[in-house]
Amino acid sequence: MTVQREAAAGNGARVVPDATVARLATYLRVLTGLGEDATTTVSSEELAAATGVNSAKLRKDLSFLGSYGIRGVGYDVATLTEQIARTLGLTVHRNVALVGVGNLGQALAGYAGFASRGFRIAALIDADLGRVGTTVHGVAVRNIADLEHVVADEKITIAVLTTPAAVAQDVCDRLVAAGVTSILNFAPVVLSVPDHVDVRKVDLAAELQILSFHENRKNGALVV
Amino acid sequence: MTVQREAAAGNGARVVPDATVARLATYLRVLTGLGEDATTTVSSEELAAATGVNSAKLRKDLSFLGSYGIRGVGYDVATLTEQIARTLGLTVHRNVALVGVGNLGQALAGYAGFASRGFRIAALIDADLGRVGTTVHGVAVRNIADLEHVVADEKITIAVLTTPAAVAQDVCDRLVAAGVTSILNFAPVVLSVPDHVDVRKVDLAAELQILSFHENRKNGALVV
Repeated sequence: MTVQREAAAGNGARVVPDATVARLATYLRVLTGLGEDATTTVSSEELAAATGVNSAKLRKDLSFLGSYGIRGVGYDVATLTEQIARTLGLTVHRNVALVGVGNLGQALAGYAGFASRGFRIAALIDADLGRVGTTVHGVAVRNIADLEHVVADEKITIAVLTTPAAVAQDVCDRLVAAGVTSILNFAPVVLSVPDHVDVRKVDLAAELQILSFHENRKNGALVV
Repeated sequence: MTVQREAAAGNGARVVPDATVARLATYLRVLTGLGEDATTTVSSEELAAATGVNSAKLRKDLSFLGSYGIRGVGYDVATLTEQIARTLGLTVHRNVALVGVGNLGQALAGYAGFASRGFRIAALIDADLGRVGTTVHGVAVRNIADLEHVVADEKITIAVLTTPAAVAQDVCDRLVAAGVTSILNFAPVVLSVPDHVDVRKVDLAAELQILSFHENRKNGALVV
């Protein structure tokens, strides 16, 4: 994954790096599991081990939240869970639209990990009239001609873009004009967006290419 | 995306950071398009604009390859394409196994971006006997009981893991024992692997959580 554009610092607030935000999401997943197991405190070492992060980095990450734990005791699981959820904005209900209901879009629409972490796929949108009107994982597929109405009606601010590359920028422009301010982009193109819009890009093939690079290195190839 | 573990420096080779490798994959995609359009040279500014990277960072990335371009002319598209492909190990044919042929696994098996960038999904593996023996995107689904044979027969070194979280570590251990040395992990767990194995983790819900964090900030919430 490459972050296409670093978010600008806003509101004079202390800026939490995206890498820290990504790790906060991981800590939250582990903390939620601990809470379900009725564990009440966790040391930074335990949390670090369960999340695959070194404990110094973990303590630094949590210090962004003003959360320092208690020496010899650790962090209160419930308090830390709530602090991270609030920081990530997960205490606010967010409706997500997914545009492009092909193979990948259908899989993401049914991805249990979204719902379990507070995101509701409120709308599916596609240009294929054979798909429009069908139901995928309980959500009706809407016509892309109605994109603006769907975004307004469902109060969508986050969109997942799984269209073919050729139409991704056009769809992105329409989403932004309709009021979407965050886009998770799976289309293999670099999207142009205004400054107030955040784009995160998931390039699945690039992930394999990075592994391929490491395979190459392991086989004793000269790296550069 | 969080990189679960930084790859150790090996073989005394100059280490290319994973962030650079990710961007190299992006440059390669754009360069391949330019080559198909019969463009022979590209300036660092043009390549930077097309990939959404600033040009100073791009020049630094390409300097890892010993590629500096020619002042006033730029980079030769064919040479740079070949250099990046070689660095990423894409001139070597690599067979990939995908384990866990559910919604996401099926979508990834049909993801055109893998094949177009040199990766062949050579094997699909699942534990569900209702799926074993069926064909998904032209590849037969094999029984997980045969995992070790499939990995050996197909000379698999890279695996994509899309199993449920509860079985991911067990499957990972079997893949590693069978000779897999790179894993792209979509299961929401932190995998334990020996040092010689590289894991990259794709946490799709974490991506939405990062966007949610930025939405929160935009709405004037106190960040920390």
